[in-house]
Amino acid sequence: MCQLLGMNSNTPTDICFSFTGFQARGGLTDHHQDGWGIAFFEERGVRLFLEAQATVNSPVAELVRNYPIHSLNVISHIRKATLGRIALENTHPFQRELWGRYWIFAHNGNLRDFKPPLDGSFTPVGDTDSEFAFCWLLQQLRNRFGREAPGDQALFDALRTLAGEIGAFGEFNFLLCDGMTLYAHCASRLAYLIRMTPFGHAHLSDQDLTVDFREHTHPNDRVAVIATVPLTDNEAWIALPRGTLHAFRDGAPMHYAEVETGAECEPGSSLDEKQCE
Amino acid sequence: MCQLLGMNSNTPTDICFSFTGFQARGGLTDHHQDGWGIAFFEERGVRLFLEAQATVNSPVAELVRNYPIHSLNVISHIRKATLGRIALENTHPFQRELWGRYWIFAHNGNLRDFKPPLDGSFTPVGDTDSEFAFCWLLQQLRNRFGREAPGDQALFDALRTLAGEIGAFGEFNFLLCDGMTLYAHCASRLAYLIRMTPFGHAHLSDQDLTVDFREHTHPNDRVAVIATVPLTDNEAWIALPRGTLHAFRDGAPMHYAEVETGAECEPGSSLDEKQCE
Repeated sequence: MCQLLGMNSNTPTDICFSFTGFQARGGLTDHHQDGWGIAFFEERGVRLFLEAQATVNSPVAELVRNYPIHSLNVISHIRKATLGRIALENTHPFQRELWGRYWIFAHNGNLRDFKPPLDGSFTPVGDTDSEFAFCWLLQQLRNRFGREAPGDQALFDALRTLAGEIGAFGEFNFLLCDGMTLYAHCASRLAYLIRMTPFGHAHLSDQDLTVDFREHTHPNDRVAVIATVPLTDNEAWIALPRGTLHAFRDGAPMHYAEVETGAECEPGSSLDEKQCE
Repeated sequence: MCQLLGMNSNTPTDICFSFTGFQARGGLTDHHQDGWGIAFFEERGVRLFLEAQATVNSPVAELVRNYPIHSLNVISHIRKATLGRIALENTHPFQRELWGRYWIFAHNGNLRDFKPPLDGSFTPVGDTDSEFAFCWLLQQLRNRFGREAPGDQALFDALRTLAGEIGAFGEFNFLLCDGMTLYAHCASRLAYLIRMTPFGHAHLSDQDLTVDFREHTHPNDRVAVIATVPLTDNEAWIALPRGTLHAFRDGAPMHYAEVETGAECEPGSSLDEKQCE
């Protein structure tokens, strides 16, 4: 299984501590050696670092671990290739632009036989089930809402429906971000915690490293960290219920809803009837 | 004026030597301190490193200078902000996907009052004239050719027309790449050279650094390097004629044509008549 890591905060925050533990799973404490990537939103821009190799011994991972990039939204992924060969174009997270915003997407799980028609507005570059699902999801958003981004609630509701439709084809844990909101869909395994005042010590599960957040934070800071498996062993991680979609903003949960997998095939969906029923 | 650097080769080649000279212009030997970026194609995938600050003292530039990423196509840009504030989303090169390929674009020059309608298929995230032109150019390609990429000659001819249309609004030197072909449009200043057997020594103009390419190459290697200003002081750089579009593939010039600026407003162009005439 691949591994996901997300961060959403109310003040630009670096992810060096969490990434230090996370990247150890790319060949050191776990066997996800088939590529990794991390995307940092900085205002409307994105920095996306990708490598089609293990994180251990990667000079780019070394840079990301030691160079504090301050961001409100981060998505990272470590890959264990299952569908799609080991190649840069198959490495998560994936990036596209919609409504004048960059969108970042990373997926954990396998989708089988998910091949609805694509209309050419977003086309996969690689051959993973994940990038295909991302392209279809953005296509459906554009078809539903046209040229302008909808409001928060309408967007959340659409993502909930689409997550359910795609989720009918397999395990569909994902992190998705448009630079403002970080969406987390838990099909089988995701956990999160909120770090806020009073800050304390945190100790990594994957490396013997402790940080005292009191030395690095202001009282108003608030950070949500979401991961496939908890990154620290002395903090109160909360397992997201299976079959739920969550929206995080400003370091806190904003929306939450159950996802009905495969039940909703809305008018305008390009999933054909056979696939939906 | 910003600075452009491109590389197109017939075998995966690192750009550490050229980038070492080029990045010195980002605050050391020249005053382009408002951001820089570099995109490496690796098969169909792209690695894009961006920073909205000077290259000197940048740990990411240090990484790129010392970590040999082997690529057939590279585009780099150092920014002196003129239109659009200093921000990551305004940092070149820009990336989009069309026809299941990533496209990378960097621009040198200023476009004034270039604001044709965009249909929402590609929308700028930042506020530069450059990203706007890139979005419009891709929109026009999709409108002209639909969901499938055309052949080489048809694509070249379309780019030639579009370069002329946009070039009517100002200085429009650009590098553009779809992972196979590197396109270079010279409005005012671009130079190139082909490195091939017999390889020799090259000495940077911006740093006192010499490389002996005989130690790093095979006899069949061939590399085209394109830059705003020649990077070395002992090689035979060729100035591209003003008003020309060039296509490089496999480390060699493939097509070449004069561009008639502002003359062609084709049916289907979304430039309105007032702007075209």
